[in-house]
Amino acid sequence: MRLHRPHLSPAGIKQEELRRHNLSLLLRYVHLAGPTQRATLTARTGLNRSTIGALAADLANIAELVREEAPGVRSGAGRPSLVVVPETEHYQALAFDLGVDRIVGARVGLGGTMLSRKVVPLPPGDRNFESVVALTVTAARQLADEFGPRARCVGVGVAVPAVVRGTDGFVRFAPNLGWEQQPLGETLGAALVEALPGCSFDRAAVLVANDADLGALAEHTRGVARGHDDVVYLSGNVGVGAGVICGGRPLRGHGGYAGEAGHMIVNPAGQRCRCGARGCWETEVGIDAVLRAAGHEPGDGTTPRMVVADAQAGDQRARHALYEISRWLAVGVGNLVNLFNPELVIFGGELRELLEAVECDVVNMMGAGGLTMSREHVELVPSALGGDSPLFGAAELAFAPLLDDPLGVAATLPATGG
Amino acid sequence: MRLHRPHLSPAGIKQEELRRHNLSLLLRYVHLAGPTQRATLTARTGLNRSTIGALAADLANIAELVREEAPGVRSGAGRPSLVVVPETEHYQALAFDLGVDRIVGARVGLGGTMLSRKVVPLPPGDRNFESVVALTVTAARQLADEFGPRARCVGVGVAVPAVVRGTDGFVRFAPNLGWEQQPLGETLGAALVEALPGCSFDRAAVLVANDADLGALAEHTRGVARGHDDVVYLSGNVGVGAGVICGGRPLRGHGGYAGEAGHMIVNPAGQRCRCGARGCWETEVGIDAVLRAAGHEPGDGTTPRMVVADAQAGDQRARHALYEISRWLAVGVGNLVNLFNPELVIFGGELRELLEAVECDVVNMMGAGGLTMSREHVELVPSALGGDSPLFGAAELAFAPLLDDPLGVAATLPATGG
Repeated sequence: MRLHRPHLSPAGIKQEELRRHNLSLLLRYVHLAGPTQRATLTARTGLNRSTIGALAADLANIAELVREEAPGVRSGAGRPSLVVVPETEHYQALAFDLGVDRIVGARVGLGGTMLSRKVVPLPPGDRNFESVVALTVTAARQLADEFGPRARCVGVGVAVPAVVRGTDGFVRFAPNLGWEQQPLGETLGAALVEALPGCSFDRAAVLVANDADLGALAEHTRGVARGHDDVVYLSGNVGVGAGVICGGRPLRGHGGYAGEAGHMIVNPAGQRCRCGARGCWETEVGIDAVLRAAGHEPGDGTTPRMVVADAQAGDQRARHALYEISRWLAVGVGNLVNLFNPELVIFGGELRELLEAVECDVVNMMGAGGLTMSREHVELVPSALGGDSPLFGAAELAFAPLLDDPLGVAATLPATGG
Repeated sequence: MRLHRPHLSPAGIKQEELRRHNLSLLLRYVHLAGPTQRATLTARTGLNRSTIGALAADLANIAELVREEAPGVRSGAGRPSLVVVPETEHYQALAFDLGVDRIVGARVGLGGTMLSRKVVPLPPGDRNFESVVALTVTAARQLADEFGPRARCVGVGVAVPAVVRGTDGFVRFAPNLGWEQQPLGETLGAALVEALPGCSFDRAAVLVANDADLGALAEHTRGVARGHDDVVYLSGNVGVGAGVICGGRPLRGHGGYAGEAGHMIVNPAGQRCRCGARGCWETEVGIDAVLRAAGHEPGDGTTPRMVVADAQAGDQRARHALYEISRWLAVGVGNLVNLFNPELVIFGGELRELLEAVECDVVNMMGAGGLTMSREHVELVPSALGGDSPLFGAAELAFAPLLDDPLGVAATLPATGG
C-alpha cells in the first residue's frame, strides 16, 4: 500500500486533532491492508514505535476495533512484533447494490471481509421505487438477523445506477430504473431505522451514491486500482457511468454529479438517448447497443458473454457488433484518457465481459490518431472485484465515518445483539 | 476566502511538521488574501491568538516574509489587532507566458502583485524552440535587472500551450508552436541559472506547465474562481485546452497530461485535427475555426472581437460563424459539465472575447436535451485576470515551494542585490 505525505491544507492543525488523525490512519491501514505487524505500521506511517503501540492499545481496549496477536512466524531476531488485526465480526456494515433486475445485499466486516451475500431478483418489469425500497428493507432485515451478539452495525451503504445528490442521497434521475426525483436516501434511511431497531444507527448513517463512483472507490481501496492515484472505472451495463479517482481522491463535482461519461456526446449524427440528447456514448456502447448490433433484442436472455462466444465461433453479426463497439469504445475511452490521463481504465459491470474480446482493437484504434502521451502508460483492465465492485464500495461508504474518527464513532454504537 | 478542514491522509503527522504546516498556512493566507489582521487569521485558521502571534513573528523576524503593521482603522473596542502584510518587494517570482506570437514576462511579488510586465513579440513565423528560449532569457535578464537590493528571487514559472510532462517540464507536443519532444524545463533552467547568477536559484526552481492548467490555478487562487472548488478553465486560442480544479485541487493525471479537452472527439464526421485524429473539439471551436467560418483567413489580422462586432453590425457570415461556434461549444462544454460537474466554466484566452456574444445560445443549446442536473448551477464566465491568467498562474507555480515551507526555502535564498 502506498502512502502519501499529508497535503498542506488551509486550516490549522491543533494538538487534539493529532491523536484522532493518527487513530484514523492506523485503523484505515489495517482495514485496507488486513492484519499488519506493529513494525510494519511504524515503517509505513512514519510514527514511532511507542506511538503505534499506544494507538493500537486504544483501538483495542477502548472500542474493540482491533485486537493484537502474536505473529504466526517470527521474522528476524529480537522480540516478535505484535500483529494488529481488524475486528471483522465486531464492526459490520450493510451494503446494497440496486440493479435494474436485482438487488444484491451483503454484510461486510471491518477489514472488508464479505460475511454474507444475498441476491433478491426484482419481479419482471417492476422497478417501482416503493417496491425496490421494500425489497431492500426485507433483505436488510435478513442480513441483520445474522449479526453476532457482539456485532455493531456501523451503517448502510447503497449503490444505485443514478445521478445522485451527494449531500442526501436524493436520486435526481435514474433513466434505466425509470426513476426521477426520488428521495432514496431519506426514504430508505427512515425505513431501515424503523426496521432495524437493534442497529441503533440514525438516518444519516444510510448513505447512497452512484454505482460507478462506488465501483471506483472499491477498486481503488481493495481492487485492481490499489496504489494507483489516477483511475477511471467504467460501470457498463444498460447505462454507462464513470467513477473517477484523481490524484488519489474521488472526483465528485459541485453537486456530486461528476462522471456522467455515458452522456458524453460523441456522435451528433447518432441515436436519441434516454436522456433526451442525441449521440450520447451510452447509445453506442451500452449493453443494449451491443445486443442489438449482434441481432438480439435486449431482455431476450442473451448476455454480452454469449455475443463474445458467438463471435469466437465465427458468427459474422456478432463479430461486426464487437467491431462497432470497439470503435466507439476507442472514441469514448480515448476522450476520457485525454481528459483524465489515468493509469488504468477499469471495465466494470457487464462491460468487463467484453474487454478481453475487444481490448486489442480498442487499443489499436485509440493509438491510430490523436495525442499519444496520455495513452502511453494507460492500461485497460477488468474490475478485480467482478460484478461486486459497487457493493464493496457501498460498504466502504458506510465504514468511512468510523474510519475518520474511530473512537468518536464507535462510542455511539452499542452492540446489536446487546 | 473559504477554508477546508485538513484531509485525513495516510501518513502520520509528527510534532515537528505542525509548525511548518502552520507557517505555510499563515503565509499562504496573506499571499492570497493580502494584508490581514491577526484577529481574522485567528478566526479563519482555527489557531489561537498566541500561536498566530508567534508564527507571524517567525515569518517576519527570521525571513522578512511578512511585516506587521498597526491597522489604519481601529475596529471595535480593545487593543487593535496587528495587520500581517506580505513582503511584496522582498520575495519575487519571474513568470512567463509563451504564446504562438509573443512572449509575455512579468515580475510578481509575494502577495501576487505584478511589479512589472514585458511583451516580446516573436519574429513573424519564427516559433523555433531555440529562438523562444533565447528571447525568454533576454526578457528574464531585463526583468531581473529591476530587482531591488533586498529582493530575493524565489524562482521562475513558465506557461506554455503544450502537453507538458509534470515532473521536469519536458514538452511532449506543442502543435501550435510546432514543437515536439523539447526539453523546455531543462534547457530554460540551465540558461536562466547561467544568465541570472545574482538570483542563485537552481534549475529545479524553473518550473514549466501547461498554460490552461496555470490559467485555472490563477483564476482559482486569485481570480473569478476563488472560493469555488470545482472549476473548468478553458484556454481558447488557436488550440483549446482545459485546466480543471476538482475538489479544490488541480487535476493533473498520471503523467501531468490531463485536461486535453481540445482533443476530445465530438464529431467523428468532422475535420482532421493537427493531432492526427478526426473531429477533435478544437477543430470546431478553436479561434482559426471561428475566423474561417466568418470568411477570414487566420493570420490576416482579424480577431474574434472583430467577428463579434461584424455579427452585431448584421454581417450574416459572422452571425453564422457565431451560431456554429455556439453549437459546438454547447456540445463540448456540455460534455465537460457532465464529466466534471463544475460550478464555473471559465472562458480564457481569446475565447473570452466570444463569450458575451454566444453565451445565451450556448446555454440554451446545452439545456435543450440531455442530463440537466449538472447544468443547474453552472455558470459560464470570462476569466477575471483577462489574458494574463496563465502568467499569474506561472508566478503561483514559482511561489509554491516557498509557500509550502516558508522558512526552509527562504533560508536558501540570498538577496539578489546582495
